[in-house]
This record gives sequence, structure tokens and C-alpha cells, in this order.
Amino acid sequence: MKKYKIGLFGFGCVGQGFFETLNSNTEISAEVVKIAVRQKNQVRKADAKLFVYDIDSVLNDDDIDLFVELIDDPDLALSIVKTALSKGKPVVTANKKMLAENLEELIELQNKYKTPIRYEGAVCGSIPILKNIDTYYNSEKIESIKGIFNGSTNYILSKIFNENISYESALKSAQENGFAESDPTLDVEGHDPKYKLSILASHIFGQVIHPSQIINWGINKLQKHDFDFAKENDLKIKLVAKVEEADNELSLLVAPHFVSKYNPLYHIEDENNIVTIEGAYSGQQILSGKGAGSLPTGLAVLSDVREILKGQGYNYKKSLVLKPIKNDLVEAYVSFSLKHSFVTELFQSITERYVGKDYSYVIGQIKISQLQTIIKLKSVNAIITSGNKIENITSKISYSYA
Amino acid sequence: MKKYKIGLFGFGCVGQGFFETLNSNTEISAEVVKIAVRQKNQVRKADAKLFVYDIDSVLNDDDIDLFVELIDDPDLALSIVKTALSKGKPVVTANKKMLAENLEELIELQNKYKTPIRYEGAVCGSIPILKNIDTYYNSEKIESIKGIFNGSTNYILSKIFNENISYESALKSAQENGFAESDPTLDVEGHDPKYKLSILASHIFGQVIHPSQIINWGINKLQKHDFDFAKENDLKIKLVAKVEEADNELSLLVAPHFVSKYNPLYHIEDENNIVTIEGAYSGQQILSGKGAGSLPTGLAVLSDVREILKGQGYNYKKSLVLKPIKNDLVEAYVSFSLKHSFVTELFQSITERYVGKDYSYVIGQIKISQLQTIIKLKSVNAIITSGNKIENITSKISYSYA
Repeated sequence: MKKYKIGLFGFGCVGQGFFETLNSNTEISAEVVKIAVRQKNQVRKADAKLFVYDIDSVLNDDDIDLFVELIDDPDLALSIVKTALSKGKPVVTANKKMLAENLEELIELQNKYKTPIRYEGAVCGSIPILKNIDTYYNSEKIESIKGIFNGSTNYILSKIFNENISYESALKSAQENGFAESDPTLDVEGHDPKYKLSILASHIFGQVIHPSQIINWGINKLQKHDFDFAKENDLKIKLVAKVEEADNELSLLVAPHFVSKYNPLYHIEDENNIVTIEGAYSGQQILSGKGAGSLPTGLAVLSDVREILKGQGYNYKKSLVLKPIKNDLVEAYVSFSLKHSFVTELFQSITERYVGKDYSYVIGQIKISQLQTIIKLKSVNAIITSGNKIENITSKISYSYA
Repeated sequence: MKKYKIGLFGFGCVGQGFFETLNSNTEISAEVVKIAVRQKNQVRKADAKLFVYDIDSVLNDDDIDLFVELIDDPDLALSIVKTALSKGKPVVTANKKMLAENLEELIELQNKYKTPIRYEGAVCGSIPILKNIDTYYNSEKIESIKGIFNGSTNYILSKIFNENISYESALKSAQENGFAESDPTLDVEGHDPKYKLSILASHIFGQVIHPSQIINWGINKLQKHDFDFAKENDLKIKLVAKVEEADNELSLLVAPHFVSKYNPLYHIEDENNIVTIEGAYSGQQILSGKGAGSLPTGLAVLSDVREILKGQGYNYKKSLVLKPIKNDLVEAYVSFSLKHSFVTELFQSITERYVGKDYSYVIGQIKISQLQTIIKLKSVNAIITSGNKIENITSKISYSYA
């Protein structure tokens, strides 16, 4: 039986996890024969003979059957994937930013060179969501996908709600425990889950949705009064990514949401992720698991290697008619400092309003495009309330001094 | 593009669901050309010309490429599957009893005739568990699977806990709403989830586990005092099916369990099912969705047709060493009427004991084989407490008059 030769790029968290799961498995006949890394003179948990320090000596090795690309740099990752495809060599990658921003071109190149790429590890770590979207749910009429796609922010929010600590302390704890980068911008501002949503939505709806078409904001500006409001109302705040289809239009959003205990997202803690699928046939389906980590993501990468060795790329179903992206009217809670009280005027309808000495809030219907504008202002925060069971919110007594 | 011809057996709930999902899909090039049913003169939601009333006219039709078997009768289903395989025709089936009781022979026949059968619809309705076990988790070291595999009993238990009604009223409601059969024995005594556990465990551990090797009891004998005990302790009772591997031995069980709100099973209501997987690499993974129903199960059957058309059967990994099945020491709550107080003597250790006028209960460690014996006695009920977070149970004040 032929033993397939793998060229690996990167030996960080996921690279090591993949290496370990591959080596301890007995069913996939493949081995890593070269690993390209940047830094010399580092002690690594693999035979020193495997390591090389220039990418081309791996890319140009004709003995290698497929590449596994697990480096951080999206530009370099893109160049590796494109060179590999041009040589007719399949690639497994987990670089969500690179994939989301270049998906259209990458689909074309796969067709041109009749060579597949796969990237389960790029979306929700250990959860086999792309694989299932691509096969099991291929015949399902998916109406919406909602979920928690980012482990770092979910870890931070869990700490805030379960241990009653501040955003700053929770972020620090996440960084100390390896659940957040030293520069956490991509996570806490909601860019990382946007890349994942872009990839998922493109696979589901058969049209490439570029991340620039998705509105996102994060959890980095949320204030103590916002967390207190949630707690008083028996709600949690979760950073939700979602896409919904209605009347042949798509709604896409990454934003903090209030969720009640009746919502499955409420119970997903720490670095775990969840994907909920609403389908015309199956109703609600849930997949949940670790959204990051060395071995969990390594397993996802390994499962792609298995599929590649069976010659299995993604199906990329193609919608005949492009669906426009909607400027939704959403229900949101918006809190703001007193100098921003013009915010109230932007609501199309108001169900609850509070004016205090230090801050105010309004709950009501507002256009998503207007939310996108005001959320950029300092000390304006918005949390989506619609699409969840929010029965408790309106039971709060409203103090309206205005 | 060739349009594959399907011969369908049965046009009940799942048969109709499969027919509808197949006909409204645009990606699978296949059509149902003949449907074998038993009863003549019935109005059915399909072209009358499709229906035939003898099985052989479908089985012997050489134009048919694959069979979909969705009848109730396990013996007849087995004979259909065996005949089809002997003709080299693949089969999709959802008959869990037939599969579980004959899996060893069916694996041999698939090898002998080099013809696959698939049966996603047989295990947990719409949840793509077999498919994922067979591919994604193939390289995972699965340590345990626990879940709710039966929609009827979960519907009944949800009614009892959420609407505070009796077992009898809840069963009646389940029957009226189509969630339980008029003879509910297979469900309420825990046989149905045992068949599913047998199939799942066989796929995971690479050794055929016959349903007769699995101890099971159900929810049909639970009394008001058992439900009250759960409610007083903020617990729910769920009918759990589980298999665990430890020290190269397997533990298998289908039995009512106490679950606290920290357990994902607690939140699964009505006809929904859940499968939780503990893996060495991925940690805890959760899949959840409808466990029954026409379109949800129809979608699962359709996904098998898609795989069959790609020539994809199951992998059936094979363990080199057969793992023995353990006679576990478990922690259980056992309630009993006064004439059965000898039950107390069977416990190896007791953490809590109550002796009342009408009934008594003991919580403690007991051998599973002894539980199996006493559970057959009238007015003896057992609920497993271990393997869940049961922090609340022992906080209850114990009244010990003995």
C-alpha cells in the first residue's frame, strides 16, 4: 500500500496537533516527510531531520503528494496554495482569512488545475461543519445558520458571566491561558468569526460572499452596565455569527447578541463553539465542540487529508441566481453616553428606553446600516436582541426621563 | 447524465419523507420507479402507477439500480436486504432492529457480494452520526458516546417535567401527536435505543455488539415519587444510551439517568435526540437534531442514496482484539415498595437512604447485573446517577428510619 508523502508548512499549535494525530492513527497511509518552519535553532517535538527553512524546498519537492499549510501569514499561505494548485498538488489549509478573502479565485484555480483544497480546520476548529454542509446537508434547504464561531471571545464572555470579573481581567486570563492572542483584535472585534461565516455562507448558498459584505462588530467596547443589564434579565451575551435566507435575500451579521437559557447558545461555554442549522427538512440541527486547540483542530486537518487521499474535494454548489444582501431592520439594545443621545432618533420604533446620569439605553427597531455607523462611536454599544427568546427583557421596569 | 432508478419498499412516514426530499432535490440524479406497498385501495401522495403490491416485482426488476427499504417488518426487511445484496444491488435501510440483530451477517454479505448497504436513518433520525463516525471520527480515539436516542420517550419525559402531568397522560399525548406507537413497548422499555446503541458501538469499536449483550430498561415503571425526587433536586430524568471504553473493556447501558442542568442532555426536549462524543483529540463533541419524523429521517435516507451513488459503503473498521463487556459497578437510585426491602442488601455501599410508609429508596453503588435482576420486579425502579453531575442529590436531607 502506497504511503502518501505530505509536505507540512508551519509547526505551531495546529501543525503539531496535526502531526501528532497523523502519527498515532493507524488507518491513513500517509507520513510527513518535510516541515518548513521560519525559526532555526528551536527545539521541536519531531525528528530534526524533517525541518527545512525555506518554503521552496518543500513546494518544489516532486516526491511530495500533498501539502498541509498551517502558517499564520495569510499572504504567504495564499502564495503556497496557488503554487501547489498550479503543480497539480492538493492542499489542506486552515487559514480562514486567506480563504475568505480569496475564495472566488481559489475555486477557479481548483477547477482550472482539477486539484482540490480542503479546509475543515479553518471553520470552528474540531466541528465537522464544512464536511457535513458539503455532503449531508447538500440536499437540505438550509434557511439559517447561527452560532458561536470564536473560542477566544466565548472564553472571555464565559469568564465575565460565570466569574463576575471585568472585560479587562477576562481578556488577560484568556491570554494567559492561551485562548487569546497577544494582539486580540481579530477576535474581540469580530473579524475572525466573520471570515468563518463568509466561508460557510459561500458553501451553503452557492455564491461567494466576501467578508467585506458582512457587517461585524465585537465585544471589546462592552461596558459594565451592558453586562449588568444582561445579568439582571437572566440573559447572557454571546458573540453570534449568522446568515439567514428569507424572500430570496440574505441577511448576514457578526455581533453580540442577548441569549436566554432557552437558546442552545446560552449553554456553550469557554473555548467551545456551536453551529445551529435550521433546515426545511430536518428542523434544527446542532453541532458543538472545541473551536480551537492543537489536537481538536489537528483532527479536523487530518480528516481533510483522509478526504484528499480519496480524491474528494468540495462540491461548491452554484446558485443560479445571486441573492442580494439585505439591509435588515433589527431589534437591538443600544447603550450610549449622554453626548450621543441623538442615537435615539435613529430608531424606527422603541419598546424600552432608559435615561440615566451616566449612560442611557434604547431597545427597539433600527436599520443595520445605521447600527454599523453608530457602533464606531466611542461609548456606543449595540447588542442584538431579535432572533432569540428575549421574553425577559421587556419585563424590566423602564425608567424614562426623556 | 444517467438517472439512477430506485425501487422503494414501504410508503409510510419515512418512505413518504424520503420520496418528498428526493423529488424536491436538484443535485441527486435519481428517481423512484417502483414502490412496493402492502395495502391496496389507499390514496397515496404519489403517482398511482408507481405502486405495486408484491415485493418480488420490485426485487426482480433488473432496471432498478438500488433499493430503499423502509418497511416495519424486520424479518421481511432482512429478506429484502439479503436478496438485494445477492443480486449485487446496494440497499439503503432504516430498520434498526433488523440491522442490530443481524449486523455480523450483513457485514459478511456486503464483503461477499462487494455491495454496500447504508442506514443513517436507523440511528437518531436526522442526526448524521453514522456518517461522521465512519469518516470524520475514524481517526479519533472515541472514549465514550452518550445520548438520547429515542424521541418517543424523550417527548414523554419532557411532558412530565415541563407540564407536570403523569406518565399515563404524557404517553397518551405522545400517541395522539404521533410521537409514540399504539404499542409503545419497544420505546418505553428501552429496546429501540438499545438497537441504535448496538449499531453505533459496533461501528465505533470495530467489533459487532449484539443487542442481547446490552442491558436495558425503560421509563414505563417510573412512579410519581421518582419524578418528584428528581424535581426536588433540580434534576430531570432522561433515557440515556451509552457506551464507554476504559481499560480495554466496554460498558454499555440503556437506562433512565438523572441529569442536572450542567449536562447537555438536560436541555434536549420533546422528540429531539442528542449524541455526545468524548474523544481523546477533540474532547466533547455534540450532535443534536430531530430523532424521528417524516422529512428529518427522509433527509438521512436521501444522504445515504447520495453516498451509495458515489460507491461509498461504510468502512467497518475492525478491532484486532475483542474487548470484553464489563459488569459495571454503577451508582444508582433505587426506589421500591416495602416488601422489596431486601434490595438494600444488594448495594455495595450506600450514600443516602430513605424509608417511608409507601416506598423507600437507596442511593449507592450496585453491580449492574444485580440492577438488571431487581428492575424486573414490580414497583422496583432504578435510575442511574453516576456519569452525570449530581451535586444536588446528596444535598437532600436523608430520613433514615431503618
